Amino acid sequence: MSDLLKFGREVLAAQPFSTLLGAELVSFQPGSAELALDLRPDLLQQHGFAHGGVVSYLADNALTYAGGSVLGDSLTLEFKINYLRPAKGTRLIARSRVTGSGKRQAVCHCDVFAVDPEGNERLCATAQGTIWKREQA
Amino acid sequence: MSDLLKFGREVLAAQPFSTLLGAELVSFQPGSAELALDLRPDLLQQHGFAHGGVVSYLADNALTYAGGSVLGDSLTLEFKINYLRPAKGTRLIARSRVTGSGKRQAVCHCDVFAVDPEGNERLCATAQGTIWKREQA
Amino acid sequence: MSDLLKFGREVLAAQPFSTLLGAELVSFQPGSAELALDLRPDLLQQHGFAHGGVVSYLADNALTYAGGSVLGDSLTLEFKINYLRPAKGTRLIARSRVTGSGKRQAVCHCDVFAVDPEGNERLCATAQGTIWKREQA
Amino acid sequence: MSDLLKFGREVLAAQPFSTLLGAELVSFQPGSAELALDLRPDLLQQHGFAHGGVVSYLADNALTYAGGSVLGDSLTLEFKINYLRPAKGTRLIARSRVTGSGKRQAVCHCDVFAVDPEGNERLCATAQGTIWKREQA
Repeated sequence: MSDLLKFGREVLAAQPFSTLLGAELVSFQPGSAELALDLRPDLLQQHGFAHGGVVSYLADNALTYAGGSVLGDSLTLEFKINYLRPAKGTRLIARSRVTGSGKRQAVCHCDVFAVDPEGNERLCATAQGTIWKREQA
Repeated sequence: MSDLLKFGREVLAAQPFSTLLGAELVSFQPGSAELALDLRPDLLQQHGFAHGGVVSYLADNALTYAGGSVLGDSLTLEFKINYLRPAKGTRLIARSRVTGSGKRQAVCHCDVFAVDPEGNERLCATAQGTIWKREQA
Repeated sequence: MSDLLKFGREVLAAQPFSTLLGAELVSFQPGSAELALDLRPDLLQQHGFAHGGVVSYLADNALTYAGGSVLGDSLTLEFKINYLRPAKGTRLIARSRVTGSGKRQAVCHCDVFAVDPEGNERLCATAQGTIWKREQA
Repeated sequence: MSDLLKFGREVLAAQPFSTLLGAELVSFQPGSAELALDLRPDLLQQHGFAHGGVVSYLADNALTYAGGSVLGDSLTLEFKINYLRPAKGTRLIARSRVTGSGKRQAVCHCDVFAVDPEGNERLCATAQGTIWKREQA
């Protein structure tokens, strides 16, 4: 396991909310990240799909990881997400990447896929956001 | 309690993820909604503030309620959120409103406030989204 | 005329593209701005309405003015716009305001109205954006 | 020239604002589009770069073309754009693509590049938007 991935997993483990949702950092490299979680019953909405809040949590956090991989300690300034179809399946995977970056900011994209029991992936959401390097005190 | 608020609370209670997070529908009227939750330790991130995913869950869901109040059964097509400052406090309140609507869509805004133990509110995020009337089969 | 409005008009006059479109800074105060233009035939699209690019130009520029009114020299980092209905009329007015701001950023909102020959205004677009204080060299 | 490209150019030629800005539809295929314009002095802002309104016009229109290539007659419901760096050069090129689509909507992305006199391209903005199929009367 790379040092970056190991570090990324420690950060994730330090986020109680990520632990509550069962998020796993699958991959973390300079310029990209992959974050996933299993769709337990308590992560769904009233129609049996993943709640939008679970999808956006995953996108938001994956965007921050991608940006952080090139900026260091950073935070999501803002993001926008489009829901393409109901997130139905047993697992969600968010894959994020840096589209462009400077000294202070990284603009990142993220696609969220729902995985069915056979392992087929379907794109269910796509996001664009601005990650900002945290100021040093 | 109005019939609309009663109905809105039934919808919220039917969302396992909203129950997991402890969300409450405080107010629900034609054109606006107020959704809130107490900031338990498991809703935080590594610095002790509300996790961005909790803030965006609340904004997203409040936007959908506002849009649904004028459109009926509907869903969030997309939304965008800006995080203004760390969401620090004991409770989060999201207040949403319809800014403009037609037969099929409602464009809504939402402000999310963090409340400290003394009851003081500070704006910590603001969101804009598109709510769409669900098609009838 | 206030010094701020006078200064804002000088900035606008120094933008060749704003001159090409005939934009006027109607009002400029700490925390808000109003930018308008007359809908000449060459600002329309194929259905006789204002081109989306004219509406978004006006929103974008008005957002920057609002943010700049509290930050000083600044630029639009990003923005999002929803088109609510066709922008039909003789004039467009964009009214922007600062929703929240810190030392470096201002998150601003803007509503764009189409004005008919009788002076009635209809909301045709609404935008949210992030304005950033320009770094000093 | 394909029939689709020929049709797309007729639509562009029917938009007075696109003619005013000198936009050209370079490529138009199912799922993607390329729109460009030369950076004349009257398309700049006060620092000599392309005005943000020119960049966002190009992104918005390219997004609509991409969506329209799979949906038919359609319109931009909303979009979000991040400006990555000043758009400096002699020409702007916007390349858009459909990321996901259904019967009614297409979610599209667009990258805008500034081209210098030597033909080098630099990414200066990136956008994500929702294109909607126009309702039939």
